[in-house]
Amino acid sequence: MTTIADFTSQYGLVQKIDAFGFMEYLKANPDAPRKHGKIVLVTADTPLKASRGEGKTTTTIALIDALRARGIDATAVLRQPSMGITAAGSKGGASGGGKASLTHPELIDWGLCGEMAAIAAAQNLLVSFAEKAIDEGRIDTILVPRVSEVPSRSLRSITVDAGKNNVAERVVLTPTCELMQIVVLSRSMDEIGDRVAKMIAGTKDGKPVTFGEFVDLWRITDMLADAVKPALTETVNGSPVYVHGGPFANVSIGIPTLVSVEMACALHDVVIVEAGYGTDAGAQKWLDIACREYGAQWPSAAIVVTRASTWRDDPDLAWRYPFHVDRLEKLDIPAFPLVNLWDGEDDQIPELRETAERLEFREPIIGNLYRDGGDGLASQLDAFVDVLTNSSMPPAQHSHKGMPLIENVKWVAENAYGVPNDRVLFKDGFLDSVGAANTLCSEAGISLDDLALVAVKSPATMTDNDRAPQDERTVTLKKVEVHAGAGLAQVNLTTSLTTPMPKIV
Amino acid sequence: MTTIADFTSQYGLVQKIDAFGFMEYLKANPDAPRKHGKIVLVTADTPLKASRGEGKTTTTIALIDALRARGIDATAVLRQPSMGITAAGSKGGASGGGKASLTHPELIDWGLCGEMAAIAAAQNLLVSFAEKAIDEGRIDTILVPRVSEVPSRSLRSITVDAGKNNVAERVVLTPTCELMQIVVLSRSMDEIGDRVAKMIAGTKDGKPVTFGEFVDLWRITDMLADAVKPALTETVNGSPVYVHGGPFANVSIGIPTLVSVEMACALHDVVIVEAGYGTDAGAQKWLDIACREYGAQWPSAAIVVTRASTWRDDPDLAWRYPFHVDRLEKLDIPAFPLVNLWDGEDDQIPELRETAERLEFREPIIGNLYRDGGDGLASQLDAFVDVLTNSSMPPAQHSHKGMPLIENVKWVAENAYGVPNDRVLFKDGFLDSVGAANTLCSEAGISLDDLALVAVKSPATMTDNDRAPQDERTVTLKKVEVHAGAGLAQVNLTTSLTTPMPKIV
Repeated sequence: MTTIADFTSQYGLVQKIDAFGFMEYLKANPDAPRKHGKIVLVTADTPLKASRGEGKTTTTIALIDALRARGIDATAVLRQPSMGITAAGSKGGASGGGKASLTHPELIDWGLCGEMAAIAAAQNLLVSFAEKAIDEGRIDTILVPRVSEVPSRSLRSITVDAGKNNVAERVVLTPTCELMQIVVLSRSMDEIGDRVAKMIAGTKDGKPVTFGEFVDLWRITDMLADAVKPALTETVNGSPVYVHGGPFANVSIGIPTLVSVEMACALHDVVIVEAGYGTDAGAQKWLDIACREYGAQWPSAAIVVTRASTWRDDPDLAWRYPFHVDRLEKLDIPAFPLVNLWDGEDDQIPELRETAERLEFREPIIGNLYRDGGDGLASQLDAFVDVLTNSSMPPAQHSHKGMPLIENVKWVAENAYGVPNDRVLFKDGFLDSVGAANTLCSEAGISLDDLALVAVKSPATMTDNDRAPQDERTVTLKKVEVHAGAGLAQVNLTTSLTTPMPKIV
Repeated sequence: MTTIADFTSQYGLVQKIDAFGFMEYLKANPDAPRKHGKIVLVTADTPLKASRGEGKTTTTIALIDALRARGIDATAVLRQPSMGITAAGSKGGASGGGKASLTHPELIDWGLCGEMAAIAAAQNLLVSFAEKAIDEGRIDTILVPRVSEVPSRSLRSITVDAGKNNVAERVVLTPTCELMQIVVLSRSMDEIGDRVAKMIAGTKDGKPVTFGEFVDLWRITDMLADAVKPALTETVNGSPVYVHGGPFANVSIGIPTLVSVEMACALHDVVIVEAGYGTDAGAQKWLDIACREYGAQWPSAAIVVTRASTWRDDPDLAWRYPFHVDRLEKLDIPAFPLVNLWDGEDDQIPELRETAERLEFREPIIGNLYRDGGDGLASQLDAFVDVLTNSSMPPAQHSHKGMPLIENVKWVAENAYGVPNDRVLFKDGFLDSVGAANTLCSEAGISLDDLALVAVKSPATMTDNDRAPQDERTVTLKKVEVHAGAGLAQVNLTTSLTTPMPKIV
């Protein structure tokens, strides 16, 4: 009998799975055994600082260990952290901590057998071919940025061929590039190739020119074929964890690949999808892009992680956590608060429970997950397990395809950030940018309003100033960028960096 | 019993070996069984064009298949081709062809589980830290280039932080960077760390500042630890082949890693080291850098590959092949000519043998290796096998350590390129460059003259004009660059590109 093992290969201390092949096998063999796992989003409050995590990965790992201890076949799909950020930073990677850790965090943190690197090399090769196309007179402007796997703010704006033609270019972090988005959203290598062919390389006399017009697609797909596969690793307690896709849901989509989540659902009963930074970033992208526009499964429940201090100690920002919980509940996603305690905070539990009750939350799950791992959670999961066990599979949600882009952004501002229509502001030049994007799309034979919307923003804020009173909060729209291959329209808003390229700290 | 299998892990379709660990084990266990393999260089005539190979890899693969068919435990150590060049070019990778191929060329060609990418990310992270050091006032000039895995000539000269501080920077191909050189020359991860610490990041008020003064070395060594290991694959006939290190022996060292060759010598009786482009590039680097300065084993024999046409049809350049063969013989390295025939050239064999006799070569080995693989060679290897079987292990050769840099370059020009002292010319600014390098080194506490010399040149020429009459050929020295971590002084000469970054063709 064919099983997932036939699609699995060892790569050092992790395994990699030919997920495209496995899903194709299931499709071709409708009677082959499979599960129909339900999806749980683990998301969080909007962070006070991007660099200070509440412990979403730690929570995710503790949660699957706890569910498995209760006899439930649970797994998680994590995104690979950015190696450059991990190496440059002080806090280590994104593979949990303490008793809620992966067995081999070092392999997730340090390159994962070349997956992100293959995407980086392929995207940079596309830029090289775009330059060649300029030399050959096929295009006169390049619209795709180079990428870097390590942060370096000086790369946000560069001039290449310096001293001669002095061409202005941009460099963005690898996980935020269009090719990464294509990898996240595609369900076969052929689809990756087709989407690369539709990427707009640049313009010639103002008209869009796609890569399909001048690049042999094997050059790109061959680079990706071996490296771009979900990795399988496990927690220190032996629970399976898949890793595929990249971070930065604030400035890109930043969710696990659809194929890795769908494969996990075919293999397990409960699949945790980690969606950060906050609910306004990763969860918004999972719901409004992956589910509404790309056919991913609507979550059956959510866990909204926070820290004891974040929840209480900053009154100006205290509105955000209940706002996120309410939003998920309104979308028919049972949202369970989870407070990840740090050392010395155990005595705050009664007060945290009182606050939760006052805010009319579900009974919160509270524990020091670094110290206790899943052991601290298992006994608190009755209501959560009940929801997962007794709910029916959630229905598909309506798509926004065809909704005018600006209306779509206003819908997100109202629903995901709590800012009504009349306080969505346009920065000078924004409408010009929308007009240019509309023209570019129609000349490429697509409609801007058919593209899924990617809100590009700071991870630490939803509005121009989250500390302002509720009736004064605004969202300012800055510019639009078309990713025709990925099928996305990116809109920069509030305090977003136009080019997400952090400085080393 | 501990064996190499204990240090070997599967990575997809190839295996990777913890060569550092295995060599450490052998050192700690002097009675553990091991072989003392002899080294054979497979090198070639200076190519007419860098993009047109004579078939060194094809020859290497056919040769080990032929030797193994004769009962000799032979292997080869290849360098990983540059993925970007492979993807951008038209000729495929560097993994042989036809009956002389590797089982899984695609894995060697497309990233090899992230090895080159890890080196690229680590070198680029060093540049990011150098930028941070500028912000912090530790340095005021950066001396290390960024790297790219894909070619793009516009990157040769870039301005970063464009529009603000406008800092001039360079980008070089990953395989040519100092960190790659360190990986090639180091015999432990600790040595890699020590050498990174000695790399000169830049200068402050003209004085050198090393990375060891401000970068935590774990950031670099962690990035390399899993990815940077020799890969084990095999030929279509099942002969073992190791892959480790990168290309471009014309502009860098471009030889396989020392640890991979030494591991292969401990495991096999004959180890083929591929050293290209021509004898003046890879072989010169193996002999004069790896052997003389870094304790690698002197070759017991060489195979000098050429094509039937190259050998005869360009009278102006016909001096080069016999020059290379003679040079190797004078160094006590028995040099066997090998002519790699293309389709339709079989009838030229008698004429080729006559030419070889007239030139007083050893009996040439002639075959169509793409078509026939090792089968076409086995019966022609008697003299070659006799040399390998009956020679004693070659002695260590004298080091040039302490020889003044210019004298050292002149020695290479005379011995490896056939140009005497008085026709080694200095371009304007060269002596200033030597003076600056001398000062930089002495301020860093090292001597420029103790560094091993890396000649940086075009792959297709040894002199300013190889077509000139012998008594008119010159070599022009352009500039010096110090790689204190790798222990190398690079001297650019003749028609070298200062920044090796090809345009996509």
